[in-house]
Amino acid sequence: MKYGGYTGKILRVLLDAGDFRTESLPTEWIREYIGGDGFAARLLYEEVPGQIDALSPENKLLIATGPITGTLWPMSGRTVFVSKAALTGIWGESHVGGFLGPELKYAGYDMLVVEGAAEKPVYILIEDNDLQIIDASDLWGMTTNDVTAAIKDRHKDPEIQVAAIGPAGEYKVRFAAVIVNNARAAGRTGMGAVLGSKNVKAIAIRGTGSVEVHDHEGFTELAKRAHQRVRENPQAQEMGRWGTWILTAVKQEIGELPTYNHRTGVFSGWEKLSAGYIRPRYTISDRACFGCSLGCKKMNYVREGLFAGTLEEGPEYEGLMAFGSSLGIDDYPTTLKANQVCNRYGMDIISAGATIGFAMEAFENGIIDEKDTGGLRLEWGDREMTIRLLEMMGRREGFGDILAEGSAKAAAKIGKGAEQYALHVKGMEISGQDGRTHRSIGLGHATGARGADHLRSLVVVDQLGYEDIAAERWGADKLPEIIDPYTEKHKANAVFESENSYCIRDTLIVCWYSVSWPPIFWMQDFADMLPLATGVKEFGSVDTLTEIAERQVNLKRIFNAREGISRKDDNLPSRFTDEPMPEGPGKGQVVDLEPMLDDYYRLRGWDLETGLPTNETIRRLSLEWTAKYP
Amino acid sequence: MKYGGYTGKILRVLLDAGDFRTESLPTEWIREYIGGDGFAARLLYEEVPGQIDALSPENKLLIATGPITGTLWPMSGRTVFVSKAALTGIWGESHVGGFLGPELKYAGYDMLVVEGAAEKPVYILIEDNDLQIIDASDLWGMTTNDVTAAIKDRHKDPEIQVAAIGPAGEYKVRFAAVIVNNARAAGRTGMGAVLGSKNVKAIAIRGTGSVEVHDHEGFTELAKRAHQRVRENPQAQEMGRWGTWILTAVKQEIGELPTYNHRTGVFSGWEKLSAGYIRPRYTISDRACFGCSLGCKKMNYVREGLFAGTLEEGPEYEGLMAFGSSLGIDDYPTTLKANQVCNRYGMDIISAGATIGFAMEAFENGIIDEKDTGGLRLEWGDREMTIRLLEMMGRREGFGDILAEGSAKAAAKIGKGAEQYALHVKGMEISGQDGRTHRSIGLGHATGARGADHLRSLVVVDQLGYEDIAAERWGADKLPEIIDPYTEKHKANAVFESENSYCIRDTLIVCWYSVSWPPIFWMQDFADMLPLATGVKEFGSVDTLTEIAERQVNLKRIFNAREGISRKDDNLPSRFTDEPMPEGPGKGQVVDLEPMLDDYYRLRGWDLETGLPTNETIRRLSLEWTAKYP
Repeated sequence: MKYGGYTGKILRVLLDAGDFRTESLPTEWIREYIGGDGFAARLLYEEVPGQIDALSPENKLLIATGPITGTLWPMSGRTVFVSKAALTGIWGESHVGGFLGPELKYAGYDMLVVEGAAEKPVYILIEDNDLQIIDASDLWGMTTNDVTAAIKDRHKDPEIQVAAIGPAGEYKVRFAAVIVNNARAAGRTGMGAVLGSKNVKAIAIRGTGSVEVHDHEGFTELAKRAHQRVRENPQAQEMGRWGTWILTAVKQEIGELPTYNHRTGVFSGWEKLSAGYIRPRYTISDRACFGCSLGCKKMNYVREGLFAGTLEEGPEYEGLMAFGSSLGIDDYPTTLKANQVCNRYGMDIISAGATIGFAMEAFENGIIDEKDTGGLRLEWGDREMTIRLLEMMGRREGFGDILAEGSAKAAAKIGKGAEQYALHVKGMEISGQDGRTHRSIGLGHATGARGADHLRSLVVVDQLGYEDIAAERWGADKLPEIIDPYTEKHKANAVFESENSYCIRDTLIVCWYSVSWPPIFWMQDFADMLPLATGVKEFGSVDTLTEIAERQVNLKRIFNAREGISRKDDNLPSRFTDEPMPEGPGKGQVVDLEPMLDDYYRLRGWDLETGLPTNETIRRLSLEWTAKYP
Repeated sequence: MKYGGYTGKILRVLLDAGDFRTESLPTEWIREYIGGDGFAARLLYEEVPGQIDALSPENKLLIATGPITGTLWPMSGRTVFVSKAALTGIWGESHVGGFLGPELKYAGYDMLVVEGAAEKPVYILIEDNDLQIIDASDLWGMTTNDVTAAIKDRHKDPEIQVAAIGPAGEYKVRFAAVIVNNARAAGRTGMGAVLGSKNVKAIAIRGTGSVEVHDHEGFTELAKRAHQRVRENPQAQEMGRWGTWILTAVKQEIGELPTYNHRTGVFSGWEKLSAGYIRPRYTISDRACFGCSLGCKKMNYVREGLFAGTLEEGPEYEGLMAFGSSLGIDDYPTTLKANQVCNRYGMDIISAGATIGFAMEAFENGIIDEKDTGGLRLEWGDREMTIRLLEMMGRREGFGDILAEGSAKAAAKIGKGAEQYALHVKGMEISGQDGRTHRSIGLGHATGARGADHLRSLVVVDQLGYEDIAAERWGADKLPEIIDPYTEKHKANAVFESENSYCIRDTLIVCWYSVSWPPIFWMQDFADMLPLATGVKEFGSVDTLTEIAERQVNLKRIFNAREGISRKDDNLPSRFTDEPMPEGPGKGQVVDLEPMLDDYYRLRGWDLETGLPTNETIRRLSLEWTAKYP
């Protein structure tokens, strides 16, 4: 391999044949896609045909790393799961922290491709060149923490990294997650269901090699300074102490805390879901992923009450929202218990909570009743019922079976107007933001490649801390409007700028919390670092990186277009476009999506009518080859 | 330190002062006691006065190691907890495997002495010279697996060895255990209650040093050969494959499988509790303690039924008996679930099961009814109720509060003749053997220093595999009677011989499963090894070792005498002496204890009337100093 930072190898797990195959990484991909998300998009588009069932053996599941995964660069331990999504049938990806990605690199592979389907339950064991597909009949049915412990125990190695599915993945719950290190979730879009459909209970990886960058000395020096920047950043320190829980108070203050299934943006019980309340009462230790000096993960313990005895990591802000304010529950232990159930069963906490919120609102409005639910009264704020229903979803028991389809499919099944309470974009449930009080979010949710997204499309360039970036890119005169959350003006620029930066972040792959919030590293930092890591001089230009980012966004768009996605699908639930925010700081606000879409399409080089890349854009980004793979 | 194998240091945890003190190990103890049990008996007798309340701050809890703990010698990872016993008020000790003992040695200490009591919950952290008493208010109430995970997590070191109590220790359940490595139990006599009474939630140890033996080369060579003997021993291989579960079939065959609270010795449902049945259906991996190539511990998983989802290590044969045959339950998952509850709550599975058996028989005979139990019907074979009652005991809830006192104290509280169903000696519940069908066991149960014991007094010299030892020590002509289970003849010799050998085993400390069964190592092997390890030439003589063993047995006896123990307490429940075995191979058998006691006292040099050491014995073993400590 002539490039630094890569192993140069792709490992394929051929489940049909019960075998493995190692291939060289096509080196031309490096300059065009860098790695991570980019590599995965390139391979998935070519190898998984359009219109197939995501839960069929034709689908593939990829685990990809980037050129600095497992190196000294701060927070470089993340990895990405990519597949045609079980939840939405379109582009699916889900990033995860922990230590899995570095382990895959140390084992000698840039990417893992799981294809076909096993006849009976198996787990995949990768120990450097020692590759095994092992019968998992005796592990089937286990929760993720149990199967993780069992595999480490069986192979007598506590350092084996295990990515596992729980019962939800086995039952192909549409939003089933893959859980790494017991509590780090590749949560969204249903990666767990794809693994479950392939009869793969877990992927266990152990590597003893290392990652060699192009310029060891230069890279190491830069990485050291990068760590220092992380350590000295006051917002990073705050994130280390409070984790994403700090967002509860922020969101409440600006009237954007999703409450009662996004009906409003303020929650009377917000304080009990806030960092200052939770940490002294429940947190017993901090945790960090590979190469992270922030440590935003928190271990928590509930000493008394309904969920006494619960010891679990997380939830993030999104979990506080999904099982707290959004369900009218002002109780941290309930959100912790929900997080535990989601981790152990292997479910995405956002989609799970949002689907329960959908059901509660449908129940409140008489669209479903106790006959439908098997006697459960789905009332806001009912903590015990909420956890019970969540467990039923994880095992597809009773009414849980319908909700296990996710809110969009469940609403379609239920009919009778239930659809209006299913808050999703392209089938994926809306995350813990609200376009009405943060207009760029509206555009991000509507255009995100995997549906309503808070990680690939959540915009920050219009927020405090990013003034320099925004002013430099779009002009200081535009700054007042850029940071005004209640205008549609310039929001496409903000989305475009943020999304491009995230694309590079996700090719590397580094953590959200050094790029997106707080803004420690941005495009120029990656341009400084990437040539040292890889030896590719062109990566030293922000323009080149922007082009690579654009290529990634467009490739995912073309992937979705093949599944029938176009402008009509870049929408928002009517709650955000037609129901003014009823109270709080953002009272009266709605999203006017169409002008923002026009602006965004223009920036992306997409046809205003179809919302798809023009031929010119396809040529400019060298994506003509996509036409070959229908 | 001029002796090999010792660190030469005792570490005291002074809970009252919130401080530590390091002392030199009195080197004269080495020649008189070797280590382990011996050291602990020496210190406890001197420092804990007679007649005190075991749960008062005056009591001390010791963790002791031996000269080869943490060395290359096979199975040298065990350690012993010693204290005045919460269950019985007499000599208390409980050995445990895992990795705790070696870690204490590597941290630089031969023995840990925990004294006084903390004002509020704490845990003790020992990292070499870094010693801390840390507030554990936020960990109080946790199960043992949770607190173990929390401490490892908090100190970012998965290798820290944690000995923890669960809720049962906090509630001072009389048979509360200390749990090491989540599933290794210092089970018997209530060590967990003593720690609980001192407000100590856990002891966490991490050492980075090493153990240096006297003759490194010679010792290493011998240790290598010793490992080979273990590996090549067919019985050891059997134990590695099946664990102690193999005993179920053996016990059933000889009519000694305790059934319905020892009412009989055969169980119709024995097969479902046997190794051949369990392993293929439930076992998912094997586990081993420090330095062990046997690996007798089994991880098990229940896939369906009432206890579906249970993943847990163990139980041993004793657990199969205590929650299986003894309660009329022919269901392995129930015993596994019981083991999980016992591990997590921190309870001794033998005493817990026996106490439930006592309650069931008392219920059957109308001595207690549903008014006493809060509505529970204590019926043989009721799996769900059994687990529920066990959990109630662990938290002292309702009727569980009475049973948490152990069967002897519970029976005394209940009165109305309940005592006849409380099967204990000196307050400790009878283990999974029966003196009627194995006469030497009757004598061992009656005379064991900590009460009805299966580890310090369980005799093997009268069993298959030990013919050479028995013939050599007592004459080949006596062999037929020695191995006849139904005669009292020569049984005192067998007990004397086994007990002495175990004493040396427990000074070292090595595992039962290389000495007691199968008979891989015996006195001569220790005589060959100890001079190489320690540099003490006198240890090379079996006679010297026998004298040290006798000293240990006598010192414990004197400890008990101070608490009022004498011949009257060396008894057996009338079930074994007056109720003939009702069926099976041993039908009609009873124990005739008194002649065996006479024989045993003579061998030990004890007065036939009082059952206490004569002055001559005390002089011969240099135990005159004990008179100083009333």
